[in-house]
Amino acid sequence: MKKRIVLAYSGGLDTSVAVKWLAKEHDYEVVAMAVDVGQGGDFEVIRHRAIAAGAIAVEVIDARSQFANDFVLPTLFANGMYENKYPLVSSLSRPVIAHHLVETAKKYDAVAVAHGCTGKGNDQVRFEVGIRALNPKLEIVAPVRVWGFSRADSIDYAEANSIPIVATKDKPYSIDQNLWGRAIECGEMEDPWAPPPSDVYEMTVRTKSEPSEVVITFDKGKPTAIDHKPMDLVDIIDELNVTFGSYGFGRIDMVENRRVGIKSREVYEAPAALGLIMAHDALEDITLERDLAHEKAKLSHRFSELLYDGLWYSPLREGLSNFMEYTQQYVSGEVRLGLEPNRVFVSGRRSEYSLYDYELATYEKEDAFRHSDAEGFVRIWGLGVETWSRKQVNHD
Amino acid sequence: MKKRIVLAYSGGLDTSVAVKWLAKEHDYEVVAMAVDVGQGGDFEVIRHRAIAAGAIAVEVIDARSQFANDFVLPTLFANGMYENKYPLVSSLSRPVIAHHLVETAKKYDAVAVAHGCTGKGNDQVRFEVGIRALNPKLEIVAPVRVWGFSRADSIDYAEANSIPIVATKDKPYSIDQNLWGRAIECGEMEDPWAPPPSDVYEMTVRTKSEPSEVVITFDKGKPTAIDHKPMDLVDIIDELNVTFGSYGFGRIDMVENRRVGIKSREVYEAPAALGLIMAHDALEDITLERDLAHEKAKLSHRFSELLYDGLWYSPLREGLSNFMEYTQQYVSGEVRLGLEPNRVFVSGRRSEYSLYDYELATYEKEDAFRHSDAEGFVRIWGLGVETWSRKQVNHD
Amino acid sequence: MKKRIVLAYSGGLDTSVAVKWLAKEHDYEVVAMAVDVGQGGDFEVIRHRAIAAGAIAVEVIDARSQFANDFVLPTLFANGMYENKYPLVSSLSRPVIAHHLVETAKKYDAVAVAHGCTGKGNDQVRFEVGIRALNPKLEIVAPVRVWGFSRADSIDYAEANSIPIVATKDKPYSIDQNLWGRAIECGEMEDPWAPPPSDVYEMTVRTKSEPSEVVITFDKGKPTAIDHKPMDLVDIIDELNVTFGSYGFGRIDMVENRRVGIKSREVYEAPAALGLIMAHDALEDITLERDLAHEKAKLSHRFSELLYDGLWYSPLREGLSNFMEYTQQYVSGEVRLGLEPNRVFVSGRRSEYSLYDYELATYEKEDAFRHSDAEGFVRIWGLGVETWSRKQVNHD
Amino acid sequence: MKKRIVLAYSGGLDTSVAVKWLAKEHDYEVVAMAVDVGQGGDFEVIRHRAIAAGAIAVEVIDARSQFANDFVLPTLFANGMYENKYPLVSSLSRPVIAHHLVETAKKYDAVAVAHGCTGKGNDQVRFEVGIRALNPKLEIVAPVRVWGFSRADSIDYAEANSIPIVATKDKPYSIDQNLWGRAIECGEMEDPWAPPPSDVYEMTVRTKSEPSEVVITFDKGKPTAIDHKPMDLVDIIDELNVTFGSYGFGRIDMVENRRVGIKSREVYEAPAALGLIMAHDALEDITLERDLAHEKAKLSHRFSELLYDGLWYSPLREGLSNFMEYTQQYVSGEVRLGLEPNRVFVSGRRSEYSLYDYELATYEKEDAFRHSDAEGFVRIWGLGVETWSRKQVNHD
Repeated sequence: MKKRIVLAYSGGLDTSVAVKWLAKEHDYEVVAMAVDVGQGGDFEVIRHRAIAAGAIAVEVIDARSQFANDFVLPTLFANGMYENKYPLVSSLSRPVIAHHLVETAKKYDAVAVAHGCTGKGNDQVRFEVGIRALNPKLEIVAPVRVWGFSRADSIDYAEANSIPIVATKDKPYSIDQNLWGRAIECGEMEDPWAPPPSDVYEMTVRTKSEPSEVVITFDKGKPTAIDHKPMDLVDIIDELNVTFGSYGFGRIDMVENRRVGIKSREVYEAPAALGLIMAHDALEDITLERDLAHEKAKLSHRFSELLYDGLWYSPLREGLSNFMEYTQQYVSGEVRLGLEPNRVFVSGRRSEYSLYDYELATYEKEDAFRHSDAEGFVRIWGLGVETWSRKQVNHD
Repeated sequence: MKKRIVLAYSGGLDTSVAVKWLAKEHDYEVVAMAVDVGQGGDFEVIRHRAIAAGAIAVEVIDARSQFANDFVLPTLFANGMYENKYPLVSSLSRPVIAHHLVETAKKYDAVAVAHGCTGKGNDQVRFEVGIRALNPKLEIVAPVRVWGFSRADSIDYAEANSIPIVATKDKPYSIDQNLWGRAIECGEMEDPWAPPPSDVYEMTVRTKSEPSEVVITFDKGKPTAIDHKPMDLVDIIDELNVTFGSYGFGRIDMVENRRVGIKSREVYEAPAALGLIMAHDALEDITLERDLAHEKAKLSHRFSELLYDGLWYSPLREGLSNFMEYTQQYVSGEVRLGLEPNRVFVSGRRSEYSLYDYELATYEKEDAFRHSDAEGFVRIWGLGVETWSRKQVNHD
Repeated sequence: MKKRIVLAYSGGLDTSVAVKWLAKEHDYEVVAMAVDVGQGGDFEVIRHRAIAAGAIAVEVIDARSQFANDFVLPTLFANGMYENKYPLVSSLSRPVIAHHLVETAKKYDAVAVAHGCTGKGNDQVRFEVGIRALNPKLEIVAPVRVWGFSRADSIDYAEANSIPIVATKDKPYSIDQNLWGRAIECGEMEDPWAPPPSDVYEMTVRTKSEPSEVVITFDKGKPTAIDHKPMDLVDIIDELNVTFGSYGFGRIDMVENRRVGIKSREVYEAPAALGLIMAHDALEDITLERDLAHEKAKLSHRFSELLYDGLWYSPLREGLSNFMEYTQQYVSGEVRLGLEPNRVFVSGRRSEYSLYDYELATYEKEDAFRHSDAEGFVRIWGLGVETWSRKQVNHD
Repeated sequence: MKKRIVLAYSGGLDTSVAVKWLAKEHDYEVVAMAVDVGQGGDFEVIRHRAIAAGAIAVEVIDARSQFANDFVLPTLFANGMYENKYPLVSSLSRPVIAHHLVETAKKYDAVAVAHGCTGKGNDQVRFEVGIRALNPKLEIVAPVRVWGFSRADSIDYAEANSIPIVATKDKPYSIDQNLWGRAIECGEMEDPWAPPPSDVYEMTVRTKSEPSEVVITFDKGKPTAIDHKPMDLVDIIDELNVTFGSYGFGRIDMVENRRVGIKSREVYEAPAALGLIMAHDALEDITLERDLAHEKAKLSHRFSELLYDGLWYSPLREGLSNFMEYTQQYVSGEVRLGLEPNRVFVSGRRSEYSLYDYELATYEKEDAFRHSDAEGFVRIWGLGVETWSRKQVNHD
């Protein structure tokens, strides 16, 4: 009896070739699994392609709601941005796909799972570390890392093996997309001095110029309504991708540090992600106490690093999520965003639990702050450096 | 013989009243000191006002170059932003003014210094902690914190004492400005839900809409040229304030945590600061090694917090500056910025010392990365969480 | 009708004088409240002293179990040590006393509370910040900070007002004690070069010299048995104070940084605290995954700092406690401690959930580690610094 | 013409076999290099063994002073302890040996270097990452990781190839030693519950019981004298190893997290290291300002982690060393240590630059602290949590 393997299948060239390659060169029965994380595309087409490539079965899983609520939302709680710029688009979809690889392997009694990542990217790390954390007994096969095919080789292999593909030998960009954003790599952008060609952008092509305003409601850190209309999280993200994107907002162009020791130039589009993080952060500005806010900001770096580095399933990520979730209990209220060409910005925030205290903050006559306390405060606050000055800097 | 005091003098209502008040109520000889940190205005007018208010002498000090090179630049090295948003505009001018208060006190043999800050702001902390770190023996007087005058009271006091002022009892905004930006407080913005009135903006009124590009050159972290034209730092900042501001870029609207325990709503304009920090950060992306970059980003929070909290003159700030300066030794190169309405963005970066390695990063055939190393790397990288899974999560 | 005040009453000179002083000089009805946190002493004597000093009522509260379980235990979870040396003895009792001040004020319908701390210590901060976090409406009176009495003045006041006291004008040390340890200040130790006189020690006088062993059982981070005999936490701490103390173990001599900007020399005895933290930490070494352990160690500093600085009742402390509690879910098992003169040390640790994996760790033939993975791991692990070397250090 | 390789040679079984193996199986000319980092032993014997095993040349390098001053001292500045317990004994010798491998390779025109580490330890990481940071062009060979010999296989290979060795097939412990301490692994200690056999200890066998005292002088963080007698650093460490060790002080028994993802049980002896770190830390307690001390303590974790993980030669380690060196400028003075059986403890510390201020700290009548400042300080210090309490916790 043949061994079974579950392959994370996208419908593209590499994973189509991998179906055949795993069956032919390694004698596996291949189950192709496609997970909908909001990348768009026609899953029926994908299903047929997998069968045509030789899969014995195809699983199509709609994970959009799970992705939004169990992966994106905890990351929004943390205002998660790798290297302060990248909202962790692909870093977040890999663990949900890893989860379904493990579940599907169980369902099909498979002994192994496979993914289509190369040997120099981050996604191999995210898949393999995630899979081993979920089920250390599964074997993991990474065909693309093993076979050493160039793109042309893959196309030749497909043709030689009658795999139906839609690909040309010259493919300028590599794209990964989900609800939370879109990543674009390769081509002339491999020179980090070259501006990205304008045709790389799809979600952030500006079509509007009239200023407008959007109000987002949060409940314990979770976006729950747009302009007071309650919506579920998937729909909120979908709608804000369109709304913010239509103002040309949401582009990121950066050189980032991969876990495997190299720097790479990446271009992203993430209108909803950037806008929601901005709004969420602004609501936290009025609902988180200072020390809590400052420590949370520092921990956000570590949280984001873990996600980027493939450690979603790890005790430290879980522990930090516990902390982050604690911080959200009063992050309820509304944020007003202004929209102008190329810019989305916060113009107002309010909350039933706001720590902004007009009577303490105002310079008007309602002022409740005890100014006389300040003199003592400032003297004691500075006593350490005053002593340093007397005893060390001006020591004689 | 009368005791002398040096007052940090702005030419505005409060410090004009303070000249008289210190002389009349506290029997001081008052030396008025005005420091040019790029706030604009006519210092001859200020000089005459001080004399008219009763100062025995006026010192006008051009500190723009010192401010840019000794205070702004080390902060740019750190990409210093308080609460990840505010580029520390006023936090940076206070220590340079404190320095000159102490120097001027020495020159005039004064026993005390004075400032015009209230009891609930950050600037009193910055002045007093800074002054005590520089000369713990000087007395410090804070007339505004003591006298408890409303704005109307101050105007009445000025009139009663023949102090020439240009002020009305209704003054909507409180402004502080220097080379690095402009801060606007009070008025209807004290409601953090209310959008700032459009008339609060001066530096970021959009006058241009045609896309353009600016190239900034850095040498060891220091901006040295615009579009390859060498310029000194003061001129670079001045020019970029105009250039970026003319695209409507550079606004900040936030609720921040003051050191004295309250939250306040603040609006800033800082076109050059935001643009230079963005460009500098992008150059660091290709010139700083990953671990160094990540630790520097975490320390940047602490660095910014210290500046905000009045601890420029402190051993920790100096120690962190040593670290930050070390990190800048290879931050030399160029950054290409795109300018569009309301947006300035990085579109390219290059450096002789770039750690971006095309041969490691490319997916083309020049690829020098050893893909076979990845399998072992990923297994060992995930061994800790694999063990956690086996021994704890799936323990039975 | 007179206003009521609740005073944290120790039975000592200062708080006895404070009872009378609050009644006589400020016209309060004084309720004296004594909280048993394991400091020892006869609470009936204390009760009578309070009445004799003029209290209208006395509350004696046994808070030992609450102190151990709700304050000491969460701190043990964090291995809490201020400045890596001090197990937060007094920092932990203040918040529990603050809690009872607020509760007792409610019970007696009091408008104010009072404590006997001076103006330069940490305890005033802990009391007042804690009280305001629990009930911002209560007034707080700090008689000792206000009256400016020397010790001799207090004794005179006591005599003049017929307050029965047991005190001499020369009192060498100031002591604060509870379950978690004992703090000794003042006297000749105010010179940080002078060794503490041997008579300052009470809990750590060595009476044993024969080596022995103690096994401590933990369940989810909580000590639950000594030598396999289940005991409650108060009893475990009490017994270990005696056992470890009898070997002369548990002394701390340090100069610490107070929150109010000064350094002070402090001597502590904390045999149970130091031994339990050591044992708990050793159990964590086998039950916490590396990244979790390292981040926890860093956060432990911040946690300890908050406690020391009076911020037990704060959202950041609560958030960090959430994190710390998460980390304890597998910290179950046993630690073997060796006892020798002046030394308690870990000599063994085991856990059902141990992440120590003999087959991965051993150099014997059971070795399950894939040595061949190492080469790739090491190359990728060092790729960043290799690139740094090629492109920057050895740049030409 | 044959290729040359430089092997880090210890004189033990594995590296003796490696000389022959590299020559015979890989056709290298082998240069054996032995570095004296204070491990003891007779280097003439080692020299002869290397020749007998087939080396074409032997280099013996006395690196003790370099090791002490350039590697140990910067680590002492940081109070470097991995996982708060291990003073980085072997972590520190590897980079100095890596340095000499690279230098010797240059001298002999070798194309490769080799070390005798296994595939599951930390030392392979330290050697290889260090070597690649110093000279990325050198090939690195790790015979022990490649050949897969058991101890018995190695002995057989030695006998078959006439390599003179002094080894039995049963070797209970693996030892690594240098000036800064001694590491003992393997044998029955691979069970982390088992106490280490008493015969594993050599440096900490107690021979003294009479209490005594030692005074150590530091100059800018560097130990410069014992009991006021100036000595160089190597001699200070040597002498303190004997003095402290003779009281039975200096043992560490821990389970640590290796970089390669496994936990291992390690026993160390490090009398001088532990005593010097304790003394240095105590001197910092009086010479470092609070904020500086607290941040330094947090960064010490990261510094130690880098060393442990093989990243001595890295820009982050260099940057942190810059910070650490800055902090030492006033760390000059004396520390008094008490010695008793099994215990070395700080009993006094003093410095010309001490920030301990008797007049601020004392409760005697010289008290210079302004108690009245405290009330305002405490109120403002707690204002954030007071607002949290009013607006969130007790919100209604």
